[in-house]
Amino acid sequence: MQIIMLSGGSGTRLWPLSNDARSKQFLKFLPVEGSEERESMVQRVVRQIHESGLDAGLTVATAACQRDAIEAQLGRGVDVVTEPERRKTMPAICLAAEYLAREKGCADDETVVVIPCDPFTGEGYFEAVRRMAECVEGNVADLMLMGITPTYPSAKYGYVVPEYATGRHGAFMVRRFVEKPAVDVAERLIAEHALWSGGVFAFRLGYLLRIARRYVDCPTFEGVREHFDEYPAISFDYGVVEHEASMAVVPFGGEWRDLGTWLTLTDELRHSTYGNVITDGRQNNTHIINELEIPLMCIGTSDLVIAASPDGILVSEKNRSEDIKLYADRLKARPMFEERRWGWYKVIDQVEFPDGYCALTKQLTVNPGCALSYQQHACRDEVWTFIQGSGEIVLNGERRPVKRGDTVFIPKGSRHALRADTLLTFIEVQSGSNLVEEDITRFPYDW
Amino acid sequence: MQIIMLSGGSGTRLWPLSNDARSKQFLKFLPVEGSEERESMVQRVVRQIHESGLDAGLTVATAACQRDAIEAQLGRGVDVVTEPERRKTMPAICLAAEYLAREKGCADDETVVVIPCDPFTGEGYFEAVRRMAECVEGNVADLMLMGITPTYPSAKYGYVVPEYATGRHGAFMVRRFVEKPAVDVAERLIAEHALWSGGVFAFRLGYLLRIARRYVDCPTFEGVREHFDEYPAISFDYGVVEHEASMAVVPFGGEWRDLGTWLTLTDELRHSTYGNVITDGRQNNTHIINELEIPLMCIGTSDLVIAASPDGILVSEKNRSEDIKLYADRLKARPMFEERRWGWYKVIDQVEFPDGYCALTKQLTVNPGCALSYQQHACRDEVWTFIQGSGEIVLNGERRPVKRGDTVFIPKGSRHALRADTLLTFIEVQSGSNLVEEDITRFPYDW
Repeated sequence: MQIIMLSGGSGTRLWPLSNDARSKQFLKFLPVEGSEERESMVQRVVRQIHESGLDAGLTVATAACQRDAIEAQLGRGVDVVTEPERRKTMPAICLAAEYLAREKGCADDETVVVIPCDPFTGEGYFEAVRRMAECVEGNVADLMLMGITPTYPSAKYGYVVPEYATGRHGAFMVRRFVEKPAVDVAERLIAEHALWSGGVFAFRLGYLLRIARRYVDCPTFEGVREHFDEYPAISFDYGVVEHEASMAVVPFGGEWRDLGTWLTLTDELRHSTYGNVITDGRQNNTHIINELEIPLMCIGTSDLVIAASPDGILVSEKNRSEDIKLYADRLKARPMFEERRWGWYKVIDQVEFPDGYCALTKQLTVNPGCALSYQQHACRDEVWTFIQGSGEIVLNGERRPVKRGDTVFIPKGSRHALRADTLLTFIEVQSGSNLVEEDITRFPYDW
Repeated sequence: MQIIMLSGGSGTRLWPLSNDARSKQFLKFLPVEGSEERESMVQRVVRQIHESGLDAGLTVATAACQRDAIEAQLGRGVDVVTEPERRKTMPAICLAAEYLAREKGCADDETVVVIPCDPFTGEGYFEAVRRMAECVEGNVADLMLMGITPTYPSAKYGYVVPEYATGRHGAFMVRRFVEKPAVDVAERLIAEHALWSGGVFAFRLGYLLRIARRYVDCPTFEGVREHFDEYPAISFDYGVVEHEASMAVVPFGGEWRDLGTWLTLTDELRHSTYGNVITDGRQNNTHIINELEIPLMCIGTSDLVIAASPDGILVSEKNRSEDIKLYADRLKARPMFEERRWGWYKVIDQVEFPDGYCALTKQLTVNPGCALSYQQHACRDEVWTFIQGSGEIVLNGERRPVKRGDTVFIPKGSRHALRADTLLTFIEVQSGSNLVEEDITRFPYDW
């Protein structure tokens, strides 16, 4: 059995804490039971898979720009398939299926379960996943769905109408599937005892490969990946589920909540304030999260979510927090905070002068034993001032130790690399005519 | 005639836009009629004095830490008296009176008018000031007050009960003065047709010198200033007005509003948002001011004031905005933004490591022709990276040009100065064991 965890999705619903590189599934807000620790959605799902005792391989399907965040949170032992560009869930699942076939050598009759990483689920969820896999193995249907008990006539989910008369292995054949119906249609579907589709799918690998290869058929995984843009950019629900005749559903009646908006996420938080926050104690249903170092003061207020990060500041009425995405998508700003495989950085200052010259100042922290790649920038100088720890830099082939108090000037065109011996923090001032992450040429370097 | 403008006061009521070095009177929020420009309270008062045609010398009495802000806003031509420490209004007025006598050579019979800088006043205000001065010259009383028509029984003003039967020069003798009464007493005073004291006082210089010299009597102004701590630390209302028998009041019935809190200040603003602000257009009685470069997004919300600056972020119900001071006073943080005589700086990053080592990163802008003093730090290294403009630095006696793209390392103990030829911006990374503004030794340097 193989599990594909989908961890794509753009991050603007929980702006300013999420951005293109740090989507909602990486925010460490969820309380870990019996501990003061917090974990992210992806960490929670992976922990739950391990605790469920499911004997399954795990592959994470994600956007290329999120690979570093996945590795930072789950370690490097995880199999990761990166989509060259965002193209919704059908292409993502097709690519991951090809990865199982071509790279992990899975057979056509291998059972595959696709799970999303963003619902907050309770006990019994992975029992339902196991039952779905058993139904695939028992040939109950070609495609298995998970059915969630609807709580309101939402227009944002798919609806599964089961044939309740025909249960087998705790599953029911599917009479009808309707993706994202209008609210009045959703009301009628709920009256017919329809269930929400929980975004969990199980099938044999060969089933999906037959569908995937209608669009892209290459003998190698890299070949498939190069033709990724030839898969239709639609969701798995529209591209596969809506057209499938042989489907069954396993109902799951336990805890299941979509943590996609501030309104739903704040319901799960253990505390009402996080970070450097001062209040007069008169907040009513208000959640405040401050990831900046400067203080955030709140006097009074009701039914608000307030969040501050290097990307920006949000003050929103909770019940309007679904509107954030609309406005955040218009903000074409660069991410101001990113987790990378070597550590993390935040942008602390950004200036653009009328003549187009720019300066960008970052604080960067490199984890012990990690290294920045040997690289070169065409359009910018960099000045590094080390303020914590020690390590080694390479500048145009010359290697030397650096430590707290040292300053290194890296003129444009010079090749440079950095490795941390201990936790290494430095301030970087970039200046030049074009300060984009893409102005980088990487070279191999053997430490 | 001499005018003393009081511009002291700590800045926490309008936190985070005001701080110890940038009090509310320096915030440039007030619309200038017939223009898109904005001006600060001190700039507005000085402009109004000029426009009123009063033939008067102007002296600004302020705290030492605000001298740079005064000069940045009013230019260097203004006479400024700086109090060595904050000690309320009576010591401030005594010191300014000694300055007029000892430094400006004013005679004992010179008419002096003391005006505050924080009320927002309309037409006719300076006509009332002129009438107060005329009353002093006509010997109506030893001390003249300005009376404002009360709008509610406030406990934060002084109340003047006039002898309405005895008008002269448009003034009335004062029967009684009560400083900051309880609300029920204020109600009874208003029923007696009492007026608020507007904090404007007029007298002959000799009158005040006789009072001041009861506490400090020195032949030189510098001598007086050295003994500043011997004046009682009380307000002019408690120290002088409450005990004076010969007082008259000039009523002023025009526009007069105390801009001391966010609630009252936001009433004067022309726009509801300032700076990098995105909204869904559904704000109800909400004012948003963002002095940071990162975006501030507001979705919905009613009756709030939201303000962000390098010092912090405020989200407050408007009618509770008086409580801000209580909490802001507890924030013992360094100011993160300051206007200086040579330009301005903002702190963009601040880190303290567990071993006490610190790093502080600033963006500084030096105005053309201005210079930082020749100075030395005992406990910190500095790295300057120039990102705009050109000028000259002096490092341990050696002078050389600097321009955009240059980096200078200034190890602890080295003497350094900087002068801007054009508008000069640089990023400064300070690091060391003790990063306080006070770690500075200044030396003369002759450019």
